[in-house]
Amino acid sequence: MLKRDVQPPPEHLFPPDEWRVVEAKYTDRYFGRAETVFSLSNGYLGVRGTMEEGRPSVSPGTFVNGFHETWPFLHGEVAYGLAQTGQTLVNVLDATPLRLYVDDEPLYIPTARTPEYRRVLDMREGLLARDIVWSTGSGKHVRVTSWRLVSLEDRHVMAMHYVVTPLDHQASLAVSSQLLDRQGMQGSERLRHDPRLGKFLEHRVLNCAARSQDGLRMLLGYRTANSGMTLGVGVDHVVEADSDLRTDVSFDDTGGELVVTTTAGPGMPLSITKYATYHSSRGVPPEELVARAGRALDRSMAGGLDRLRTVQREHLDRFWDRADVRVDTDLMPVRTQQAIRWNLFQVAQATWCAQGAGVPAKGLTSQAYDGHYFWDSELLVVPFLAYTQPRLARNLLRFRYSMLDRARERARQMSQRGAMFPWRTISGEEASANFQAGTAQYHINADIAYALRHYTQVRGDDRFLAELGAEVLVETARMWEDLGFYGKDGCFHIHGVTGPDEYTTVVNDNAYTNLMARENLRSAVSTVRWLQRDRPDEYTALCDVTNLKLGEAEAWERAADSMHVPYDADLGIHPQDSAFLDREVWDMTGTPRDKFPLLLHFHPLVIYRFQVLKQADVVLATFLLGNEFTPEEKRRDFDYYDLLTTGDSSLSACVQCIMAAEVGRHDQALEYFGYALLMDLADVSGNSSDGVHIASAAGVWSALVHGFGGVRDHGGRLAFTPHVPQGWRSLEFSLRFQGRQVRVHL
Amino acid sequence: MLKRDVQPPPEHLFPPDEWRVVEAKYTDRYFGRAETVFSLSNGYLGVRGTMEEGRPSVSPGTFVNGFHETWPFLHGEVAYGLAQTGQTLVNVLDATPLRLYVDDEPLYIPTARTPEYRRVLDMREGLLARDIVWSTGSGKHVRVTSWRLVSLEDRHVMAMHYVVTPLDHQASLAVSSQLLDRQGMQGSERLRHDPRLGKFLEHRVLNCAARSQDGLRMLLGYRTANSGMTLGVGVDHVVEADSDLRTDVSFDDTGGELVVTTTAGPGMPLSITKYATYHSSRGVPPEELVARAGRALDRSMAGGLDRLRTVQREHLDRFWDRADVRVDTDLMPVRTQQAIRWNLFQVAQATWCAQGAGVPAKGLTSQAYDGHYFWDSELLVVPFLAYTQPRLARNLLRFRYSMLDRARERARQMSQRGAMFPWRTISGEEASANFQAGTAQYHINADIAYALRHYTQVRGDDRFLAELGAEVLVETARMWEDLGFYGKDGCFHIHGVTGPDEYTTVVNDNAYTNLMARENLRSAVSTVRWLQRDRPDEYTALCDVTNLKLGEAEAWERAADSMHVPYDADLGIHPQDSAFLDREVWDMTGTPRDKFPLLLHFHPLVIYRFQVLKQADVVLATFLLGNEFTPEEKRRDFDYYDLLTTGDSSLSACVQCIMAAEVGRHDQALEYFGYALLMDLADVSGNSSDGVHIASAAGVWSALVHGFGGVRDHGGRLAFTPHVPQGWRSLEFSLRFQGRQVRVHL
Repeated sequence: MLKRDVQPPPEHLFPPDEWRVVEAKYTDRYFGRAETVFSLSNGYLGVRGTMEEGRPSVSPGTFVNGFHETWPFLHGEVAYGLAQTGQTLVNVLDATPLRLYVDDEPLYIPTARTPEYRRVLDMREGLLARDIVWSTGSGKHVRVTSWRLVSLEDRHVMAMHYVVTPLDHQASLAVSSQLLDRQGMQGSERLRHDPRLGKFLEHRVLNCAARSQDGLRMLLGYRTANSGMTLGVGVDHVVEADSDLRTDVSFDDTGGELVVTTTAGPGMPLSITKYATYHSSRGVPPEELVARAGRALDRSMAGGLDRLRTVQREHLDRFWDRADVRVDTDLMPVRTQQAIRWNLFQVAQATWCAQGAGVPAKGLTSQAYDGHYFWDSELLVVPFLAYTQPRLARNLLRFRYSMLDRARERARQMSQRGAMFPWRTISGEEASANFQAGTAQYHINADIAYALRHYTQVRGDDRFLAELGAEVLVETARMWEDLGFYGKDGCFHIHGVTGPDEYTTVVNDNAYTNLMARENLRSAVSTVRWLQRDRPDEYTALCDVTNLKLGEAEAWERAADSMHVPYDADLGIHPQDSAFLDREVWDMTGTPRDKFPLLLHFHPLVIYRFQVLKQADVVLATFLLGNEFTPEEKRRDFDYYDLLTTGDSSLSACVQCIMAAEVGRHDQALEYFGYALLMDLADVSGNSSDGVHIASAAGVWSALVHGFGGVRDHGGRLAFTPHVPQGWRSLEFSLRFQGRQVRVHL
Repeated sequence: MLKRDVQPPPEHLFPPDEWRVVEAKYTDRYFGRAETVFSLSNGYLGVRGTMEEGRPSVSPGTFVNGFHETWPFLHGEVAYGLAQTGQTLVNVLDATPLRLYVDDEPLYIPTARTPEYRRVLDMREGLLARDIVWSTGSGKHVRVTSWRLVSLEDRHVMAMHYVVTPLDHQASLAVSSQLLDRQGMQGSERLRHDPRLGKFLEHRVLNCAARSQDGLRMLLGYRTANSGMTLGVGVDHVVEADSDLRTDVSFDDTGGELVVTTTAGPGMPLSITKYATYHSSRGVPPEELVARAGRALDRSMAGGLDRLRTVQREHLDRFWDRADVRVDTDLMPVRTQQAIRWNLFQVAQATWCAQGAGVPAKGLTSQAYDGHYFWDSELLVVPFLAYTQPRLARNLLRFRYSMLDRARERARQMSQRGAMFPWRTISGEEASANFQAGTAQYHINADIAYALRHYTQVRGDDRFLAELGAEVLVETARMWEDLGFYGKDGCFHIHGVTGPDEYTTVVNDNAYTNLMARENLRSAVSTVRWLQRDRPDEYTALCDVTNLKLGEAEAWERAADSMHVPYDADLGIHPQDSAFLDREVWDMTGTPRDKFPLLLHFHPLVIYRFQVLKQADVVLATFLLGNEFTPEEKRRDFDYYDLLTTGDSSLSACVQCIMAAEVGRHDQALEYFGYALLMDLADVSGNSSDGVHIASAAGVWSALVHGFGGVRDHGGRLAFTPHVPQGWRSLEFSLRFQGRQVRVHL
């Protein structure tokens, strides 16, 4: 394993707290990371944790899940069947700015004297709050108290509350509440060098198609330039003060501003409540969305802030009741508990209201990876939800199902039968410009099939399997049977694929892919036979919709039973692909620490030549399909690949932790757990300011439950073999399994 | 072999003629192909064979070798070390248009009645001429006689002569002589689907920086928007008529027009001579190039047309004396001889004045492949020139040498020692946007080393080897020794490369690459030792400039001696790469003919999975390194790969012909010869209108001399084993070898 230098932020700046993330002092060093850590989201609407003043900021952002712009790929060299259209999550209008001027002096946190300062993300309340006392240049003291929430009840709604109170002198107060078009905020130069960041949209994306203003309310409707998606945005304000106040509204196609001015004596608060709403659509006219935005504002304002807060808490109570994992550790018990909860909270934020959409790689905390949905959602997020919030797991799987027709079309383009799900997408179209690392990851078909089958087993949701799942299983199994072939050895081989480990691409017989394809084929066979036997009506419907032929299931079964799984008898391990062991071994210890992640410092052709991993996909297979390996095989696979694994993928640590725990590498398990746990809180990957690693956050739950808790569910049977780390006094978690709630205390 | 339907154009339209290509009638069907076939070039300046009227046209073009524009690659997904800048040959100002109006009726060939029509490319005179009688709409008859040449003596100069003579009635004549900016002539939609075409430059490339006009002379100076290259263009005219005539000149930043009008009686000719000159530079100010253009015009006009024609003929006499290959065949003897000469003539046109530049894949007959220089120049063009025009071979190798420093830089970027020549380039920078099919073709290093060593052996040019060649050999050998590694089997392996056959990419131990790398390493070793032994001063200089260390040559020798060459004992063949035989075999007979070339109809991932070839690179290796294979190996390799070869690469046919002849597959040899011979004349690849396949044209010579003539020169020793096809009564060619002229009559 590649040792990483993990430095949690110091306690005097970020004091431990089991339920809250607290920033006790602003520092230049941590403000970028904090912008991510303090993000709020409900899975539909996300707002980065930029402070009310809007500055300083790495990259302020407000995102609506799935609301994207398209742009043509300009391939330097074209080829048949390449994806033609890029898709990028749009940074929509930012409703968070509330800029304060006291006697015309602007509040700017990095230089302001703040004798009191506290920013708090409360993970039970679902609030981001700040409380400061500002000592102005002229020596006056002003308290500024604010909080915001992104509603888990009404996914279109964000609310903010902002109170300014002079403490010792009368002061002239001005607050500028803005609705800002943030396009063009990302540095395009940086984007040219980091493949993990998203596309910088250089054209004007949002074109105003409707707007209206009434009092302190502003409504705007937009249509994107290329994708034709529509957006309605509304903000409204309630302003209260004991003193006289004046409000001025300015407003145009790109946003608006309300300026509130007053002169307040000591102890006289100026209070501003700001409601913002976002509605998006593929086709509804902007005018209609503007009307919806208006109604959403009416509704929220009628209920008021108190109701929003109360309901927010109720939602989170429900979440924590199912999802919370409690640990008691010798070392840093509060910090550990806090970090666990922050990760779980991120998954809740990324999924709670994501119906009709997927989970972007960074949730709604940035535009990185263009806001695309990948396999990690199925591999790590859906299984966690299946155990804790099955409704959310089902929503995500339903959304995948909605892409099936486009996956069928894509298979045709790729000269394959069945369906090929896109490697990365928002709309359902393949949006990977680099097919060797993208489209070649055929394994996403099997990952989706796995998540689907896993969910239906954990939930016992036969109806879902019969109604939607079977169709997906049939079309994905068809693709595999068509993609592979019988070699001269009589085995079924799958060539020319890229496994999850992107440090090699387009290889033959990637072990992970072959194993997962086999599972996919078998799931399809058993599901088809189950329907045929037990549910004749649904079987007939399936045959109709998929044009299922006699003998197809037998062909899948034969392919599965003949599947070649690379195995090296000398080493007793499963080679990652047929040529993997022929490669040179990367000189890991001879590579300077600042050359990681390798992908930012070496040409892909260099990396491809070596035994070096971004993530260990064979090890992942030994977790997902653990019943197909002996304990010794798992241990040898783990030991072999662990040495070669850079962990340059954030998905790596949690999986390595789970398998290290299982094979008895307890120190490594704990160390990997630390990496996963602190991925963003301690910036393990060096890019926390670019958004939350959502799958890794979900992986923290897996590491705890499957790793240390030792939970396995192969074949729909729950089993426990706990590996609680030394120095942990207890580990408690809860699972919902086939209709029963299981509470585990180890 | 994939059978192709080759239909030479019918004789009544294109009558056979040993020294001339004759078009006896205009047809819509053949005009696009003719625009390529009738191109003129001298290797510096090229003009497509568009008729004087400028219409109809597929894509009129005038090109100055190496004069290119740059543009940023917008990679859909970035990665470290990817090429950042595209390079595209610019379509410069077109000086060919001479548009005729008789009584205001424009001459437009497709609809004009032409009782006499003849267009002739004369390959001894180096002229493109046309002679027509036009029967105008009002029943008048007018003779229009014209010819043009691109000077082989003064590479900056093109000249045209245009004479209009009313035959039976007085007529009002107007001729518009234009200098036209042709930017934006290519359909960008087509470019999105055919990887072989070049980039469509959407921005304004040529910005005028100087211009002047005096009498009938126009001079223009430009600078390109991005690359900063400069261009000077000049045209001047001599107008003669027995009748009164009037001239009007209009002129602006984008070109100009001279309109000549007169009223001429029967038999009274109007004659216009048009001189055009082009000068380009990387940095000389446009004003200076304009001055040069003016002086070039003065010079040409002082000499006059007769001198240009006389000298043109002298140059071609010299070319044909060395390069001509004469055959006497039973079947279509004149047509065969004509086609041979047309191909050889194309190589002369692509190289004669190319000093300081390379040979683009299509010469200067189109913008396809962006006007880039590839390996095929070294593999097929340079060897032909080494035997026939060594001065030209040396110029091309000198030009490669001039790129060495940039190749060193590129190696650093790619984490390699030594030098890595770019897969495709104009400027010397890597310009391949698709690294798997581009940069991964490391073999270009070995191809350059091969061409260099081959030239010095054929020419006996030790001085060139000592002064320039050794440095290239050292740096390329270093790259190979660093790129490969010693496997557990003790052999030296080279992984992660793409061979010449682009229907698989990024493979391990590509046989062609390993064999050619071995040759490269050995050439470096022998050259270094020769210098050390025989030329101490030059050895010292080499050590200085390359920082050559003790023991390096020994390391190269060891790598060469340990080089792994894949061999399958069961089949007795050399597998194309380590996994090649594990692939499925493509169903060639089951693939409809309209699905070729495969690259336009299947996603690369589909093609990569199969045993199917664009060109057979193992077979190529058995030709280039024929002394390293037994006759049986060559035959088995040929037989095995020939079945899998689509010939979707135009480089394939000539190589298959050579080896078919050697291994005794005489029918195949003749058939492949036909494909190579008629590649453009009969549009074998279906894209002749996109320019001449120059390397295939040079390959026609190789097919004749190395294939049917059986010439080999391994180790610098000339050997003959003729395989003259049945039905060929004679085959004559000529070779210059180590200072002697060898004339062969078989």
